[in-house]
Amino acid sequence: MTMLETLMKKRNNEELTSNEIETMIQDFTAGKIPDYQISAFLMATYFTGMTIPELTNLTMAMMHSGDVLDLSTIEGIKVDKHSTGGVGDKVSLPLAPMLAALGIKVPMISGRGLGHTGGTLDKLEAIPGYQVEISEDEFKAQIDKVGTAIIGATGNIAPADKKMYALRDVTATVDSIPLIAASIMSKKLATGNNALVLDVKTGSGAFMKEQDQAEALAQIMVKIGKEAGMQMQAVISDMNQPLGNKIGNTLEIEETLDTLKGQGPKDLLEVTLTLAAPMVVMAQKADDEVTAREMLMRTIEDGSALVKFGEMITAQGGDNRVLGNYNLMPHAKFEVELTAPRNGYLSRLDADAVGIASMQLGGGRTKKDDVLDYGVGITLHKKLGDAVTEGESLMTIATEKEDITEIMDYLQEHLVVGDAVKVPTLIHKIIK
Amino acid sequence: MTMLETLMKKRNNEELTSNEIETMIQDFTAGKIPDYQISAFLMATYFTGMTIPELTNLTMAMMHSGDVLDLSTIEGIKVDKHSTGGVGDKVSLPLAPMLAALGIKVPMISGRGLGHTGGTLDKLEAIPGYQVEISEDEFKAQIDKVGTAIIGATGNIAPADKKMYALRDVTATVDSIPLIAASIMSKKLATGNNALVLDVKTGSGAFMKEQDQAEALAQIMVKIGKEAGMQMQAVISDMNQPLGNKIGNTLEIEETLDTLKGQGPKDLLEVTLTLAAPMVVMAQKADDEVTAREMLMRTIEDGSALVKFGEMITAQGGDNRVLGNYNLMPHAKFEVELTAPRNGYLSRLDADAVGIASMQLGGGRTKKDDVLDYGVGITLHKKLGDAVTEGESLMTIATEKEDITEIMDYLQEHLVVGDAVKVPTLIHKIIK
Repeated sequence: MTMLETLMKKRNNEELTSNEIETMIQDFTAGKIPDYQISAFLMATYFTGMTIPELTNLTMAMMHSGDVLDLSTIEGIKVDKHSTGGVGDKVSLPLAPMLAALGIKVPMISGRGLGHTGGTLDKLEAIPGYQVEISEDEFKAQIDKVGTAIIGATGNIAPADKKMYALRDVTATVDSIPLIAASIMSKKLATGNNALVLDVKTGSGAFMKEQDQAEALAQIMVKIGKEAGMQMQAVISDMNQPLGNKIGNTLEIEETLDTLKGQGPKDLLEVTLTLAAPMVVMAQKADDEVTAREMLMRTIEDGSALVKFGEMITAQGGDNRVLGNYNLMPHAKFEVELTAPRNGYLSRLDADAVGIASMQLGGGRTKKDDVLDYGVGITLHKKLGDAVTEGESLMTIATEKEDITEIMDYLQEHLVVGDAVKVPTLIHKIIK
Repeated sequence: MTMLETLMKKRNNEELTSNEIETMIQDFTAGKIPDYQISAFLMATYFTGMTIPELTNLTMAMMHSGDVLDLSTIEGIKVDKHSTGGVGDKVSLPLAPMLAALGIKVPMISGRGLGHTGGTLDKLEAIPGYQVEISEDEFKAQIDKVGTAIIGATGNIAPADKKMYALRDVTATVDSIPLIAASIMSKKLATGNNALVLDVKTGSGAFMKEQDQAEALAQIMVKIGKEAGMQMQAVISDMNQPLGNKIGNTLEIEETLDTLKGQGPKDLLEVTLTLAAPMVVMAQKADDEVTAREMLMRTIEDGSALVKFGEMITAQGGDNRVLGNYNLMPHAKFEVELTAPRNGYLSRLDADAVGIASMQLGGGRTKKDDVLDYGVGITLHKKLGDAVTEGESLMTIATEKEDITEIMDYLQEHLVVGDAVKVPTLIHKIIK
């Protein structure tokens, strides 16, 4: 079976065999199939979709295209969490230490930000000394000792996905649900964990703007994971406005610490608990999610989650004094207030616009090699549905540049103070 | 507008502007757009199709990607004919001299064969000395003097089509009706003719197996041509069995000469007249096709078409003594008869199988640089619906190799002697 024949089958909407898919991925990774054939395959897949067996085979083939972590030397059930990405989405940061405080193993391989959503690794690097690039052995040793570690990819994880993603990016085939699912799941399966909870965002600031699309993606990823023998669950959560109140690297570590101290915003805590509770059950530390939630809340109340976060920082070379002193992290030179133009209710606050503004301030990357300003960002004082008074500050913008008129104008355009609105539901659906 | 945006629009089934299409084709021709983006575009087009304005713009952009012949120095209406390709389809060869004998200008730029259908240029090269590669000036001079010339492409005709076709060939995007239409029409428009009659083949031996597909292609090409200001007509003709009785280069020149002498097979003459008659009307040499047919038949009866063919041969350096002496052309060493296995009627005679057999004998190319055996080929003694007797020869195979068991077996598999069948209609439809 040549690539041309595989391509012809896909185009004609015939199901590919596991052998055809494996050969394609192996040969593509080895540079034996030209990009123009793979891009035609990607576009054909965009139109014809994939069956669950095809998708499982594609995911497995991509996972096996590179290194697969072997965490079997670490005792117990290893649980993981993945988010499709949102503005202000720092959930992994409080979630990992809360779980670890319950004796659960949480090995997390995370990413950097590109575009309007931030990256967990970038946020952690706001902590002086924190190392995200550690070896596989150090990673395993830390999971054993501390219970959790959040690091960048070690070794050569799913190189087929890397090559394929680069092509999708330039061939208008990024937003294909099966291709997104295979991309995420191939990397997640390669980390060698036993359980995975997915946070699929939906709304104006999410990649999946429509809830039915988000659900379709969630359902397909849950199926692939189960086929591969993982415990799976997915949560569809809202991204019409940013999650939490702080956007920016230092700012999001601050909000994480506030949350672990019991002083964080409600929505961030709620999403964290909704994702973490099933992980507690999957790790067999609780029989049901109600009990799991109580246990998780106790890690905040008794300070054990905060201590655990400190242990993780120390283990990865960071300065754990930030727990008590936020000033040890970089902060921006200037603060500018964006005020309400009239009395009313905050009726629109586009998550992606806030993310883009934060990126333009220097908090995120427009290109892969951009250098970040960790201290810049946005602190929201009002969220959707809140009553506001003319002249009252809606948000504080932390910036290194004194003149940010353009960014202020941009933000003004993407928020509305108007009539009272229904606050969007935070958790839209749970998919098991 | 970047190529990525163009690609996104096409994928989303939005109509591209003429500017977007022109930029894409210009940049692709100049090597400024990578193949992987064009292949994604081709696959998206396979699925979303093209509107008539898009298609006209694509065709014009591809036409203008290279040289466009200027035949305006030649007086009169220049008429052309194109076939989508069939086995035994030698229609251009009798058609051009018949029209030229009526004083009509017929400049023809033709192609070589690849795969199971032969090429007009290859057939002409069976005539000793015949030159298909002549300069544009010689071409024009010959049209002026003789009225017709059949040559290979001069200069750099539609290089965008050449590049795009090469990509389509390896990305499973050959059989897309809009892409086929743009490919054919861009080259035909670049020849600078005023009128074009298309012969779109349908049936088992044709590229378009189904008649509705053939009609869709014909209709779309007629529309593009008219948009570009050409007089257009299309004929849907049958390719369930070969056209005429002879397949092979020398053999097809023999059958052409037989036809011009009034001794050719009926089906070949009928297709030739059906295509040529509207060309006579388009050239304003007759008011209607009935009169045109009579005039064309007269060029055979009075020998003027045969004389004209001889003039064309001479003008292009060939030995016009072949008109009277077929032995001056190459002939194969051996002749093998394929006989009827039983009494009955010839009920299946796959055109493509006959074409493939002729190619395997050495009469056609499997690869671009294959050298041809001009003398080999197949002479059919029976056609669909003919009564046959056990042991009677169905066809004579002219071959350079003595042992052709495999080819004989292959041919046996693709013909059936059985019950009486309805002979397929030769001309399925006329599209104006």
